[in-house]
Amino acid sequence: MDTAFDFDRYDHIRPILWTGEALELLDQRKLPFVVEHVTCRDSDEVAQAIRDLAVRGAPAIGIAAAWGVVLASGTVEADDGTAALLKLEPALQRLNAARPTAVNLAWALARMRRALATAGADWREVATREAQAIADEDLAANRRMGALGAALVAPGSGVLTHCNTGSLATAGFGTALGVIRAGMAEGRIAKVYAGETRPWLQGARLTVWELQQDGIDATLIADSAAAHLMKTGAVQWVVVGADRICANGDTANKIGTYQLAIAARHHGVKFMVVAPSSTVDLDTASGEAIEIEQRDPGELHGLGGVRTVAEGIAAWNPVFDVTPAELIDAIVTERGVVEQPDLAKMRALFAG
Amino acid sequence: MDTAFDFDRYDHIRPILWTGEALELLDQRKLPFVVEHVTCRDSDEVAQAIRDLAVRGAPAIGIAAAWGVVLASGTVEADDGTAALLKLEPALQRLNAARPTAVNLAWALARMRRALATAGADWREVATREAQAIADEDLAANRRMGALGAALVAPGSGVLTHCNTGSLATAGFGTALGVIRAGMAEGRIAKVYAGETRPWLQGARLTVWELQQDGIDATLIADSAAAHLMKTGAVQWVVVGADRICANGDTANKIGTYQLAIAARHHGVKFMVVAPSSTVDLDTASGEAIEIEQRDPGELHGLGGVRTVAEGIAAWNPVFDVTPAELIDAIVTERGVVEQPDLAKMRALFAG
Repeated sequence: MDTAFDFDRYDHIRPILWTGEALELLDQRKLPFVVEHVTCRDSDEVAQAIRDLAVRGAPAIGIAAAWGVVLASGTVEADDGTAALLKLEPALQRLNAARPTAVNLAWALARMRRALATAGADWREVATREAQAIADEDLAANRRMGALGAALVAPGSGVLTHCNTGSLATAGFGTALGVIRAGMAEGRIAKVYAGETRPWLQGARLTVWELQQDGIDATLIADSAAAHLMKTGAVQWVVVGADRICANGDTANKIGTYQLAIAARHHGVKFMVVAPSSTVDLDTASGEAIEIEQRDPGELHGLGGVRTVAEGIAAWNPVFDVTPAELIDAIVTERGVVEQPDLAKMRALFAG
Repeated sequence: MDTAFDFDRYDHIRPILWTGEALELLDQRKLPFVVEHVTCRDSDEVAQAIRDLAVRGAPAIGIAAAWGVVLASGTVEADDGTAALLKLEPALQRLNAARPTAVNLAWALARMRRALATAGADWREVATREAQAIADEDLAANRRMGALGAALVAPGSGVLTHCNTGSLATAGFGTALGVIRAGMAEGRIAKVYAGETRPWLQGARLTVWELQQDGIDATLIADSAAAHLMKTGAVQWVVVGADRICANGDTANKIGTYQLAIAARHHGVKFMVVAPSSTVDLDTASGEAIEIEQRDPGELHGLGGVRTVAEGIAAWNPVFDVTPAELIDAIVTERGVVEQPDLAKMRALFAG
């Protein structure tokens, strides 16, 4: 597939553009109605854009932060990378603090640090090459995952996805949406459904729009209609991304993922998790160890700026849930696929 | 419980008020922010209010229609009920057509017809008494169901409900919310969760507000957070209403109910359906025979006039789904409770 696949046809959107002098971020707060870029001319503007969710999605945040380091490098003078790092440290700290829970942010900054630590007088060029490498490798990983994931899907299948895991959340092509792009191109996927993904509606606002840009029709459903959809026989796979994958294969992802996995198993629908290997966290034994972040109840008090709920109403608003490995049929990474994941299989692919 | 229960404390809301001259309907389109009544002075204004969803909920629609017949009776002259019925027929037809799918609407009009058919010169008084009886019997049935359903719940339990099945949908007290009111009063229910219920958000707009009026705190959740909530051990029962219950116990209800039933079974959480016996349809053998109504995809394109989805996006918007009897632990009606429902048990309670 790698040679025959027409990536340009199925992947128009780039949320992060490096112009050589500035970072242009597609403003995801304004989509789908306004397609507008935020221009970041220094690293603090990048940190602000990450904090304010102009750029979102763990891989995309990491890439943006790497370019933030490049922008910062233009403001300091140093003879080599080690000296530069000392002067860049405050900017690195501010970038890292922009969204401390996004694992790829810390990972990308660590890579930039390592590259600079051994760089000589050409340390600015080294930083630029490393940032570009992080972006390029993410895109390559997504294309590889797209091919590996699509190969699991029988021709003519329907799939259901959740949240946004596409070009908007990565350097391009996407994780779960990469599998959907590749599967559509190969004729393996005939029909795509996307859940709205309350409370932020990433599915309704971002996913169906992103696919529409590439000429892929996706049908929106209420999150609560997923089981009924499965019962009709319309979908053979649920394909989702991940925020963290534990050593035993338990997977933390957007709230609602777990409910989809239970319904999928009930109907004999297969369940696929797609994420780069950097999402695999062998230091976390199982989902039991993951603390589920609770967010502002106010996110459930309305929709699109319209308040729908009376004053004084409590809401319970967990952002993530954990899907246990036994409900997952395949974990797809750029390193390979783990089917029916467990500790031994995960270690075999990801340890060392 | 029937003597000790302080109904006034736990049931303030009456969506339908008969003043003796007009019908005052609590306008459910404006809740929870504006508490305002629509005044209907003739039967066509009642039909309009039903059509426009000022009044909603199958039992409430039936009661409103019965009062619509009483309003129409003031506009015709006749010596007895049979003669009156001939003159009232156009008004009855218009009421019946207001929402043809609501089973209780046709049922209530049939009752009014039967009462008038045998009435003499006092046919107007007969019509008024029959409308009042329909309302009174609905309230009594709900109170009875509340007691029967609450008795199934172990003290200190948490419950999750879906959509709005409360005073707003009935003559008062509610079906599933009646069980919750009774269970709270008895200390059997310690904590109530309500799903938002996309796309119309009856849970967010109506249920939590209605319970708040009675001093019952309910916590709102995204529909997609239900399985995660169950995993935390916070709920022991899911309690819902019904739009139609088949001969074998299969139950049609608001979209999302089926998904809750699957998640409940997965976690060992019990699942209760609460509805008056008029909702039981022995002529429909099973859920397979129920056609699921599809509504305007536009209901998923935004909320409250604010659009969240790009132009040209398809949406699949079924209003109901069917929960198979094998996922239901108890069907509660005013005639009694059917546990682990099947055809034989349903026939034993409801046939004849």
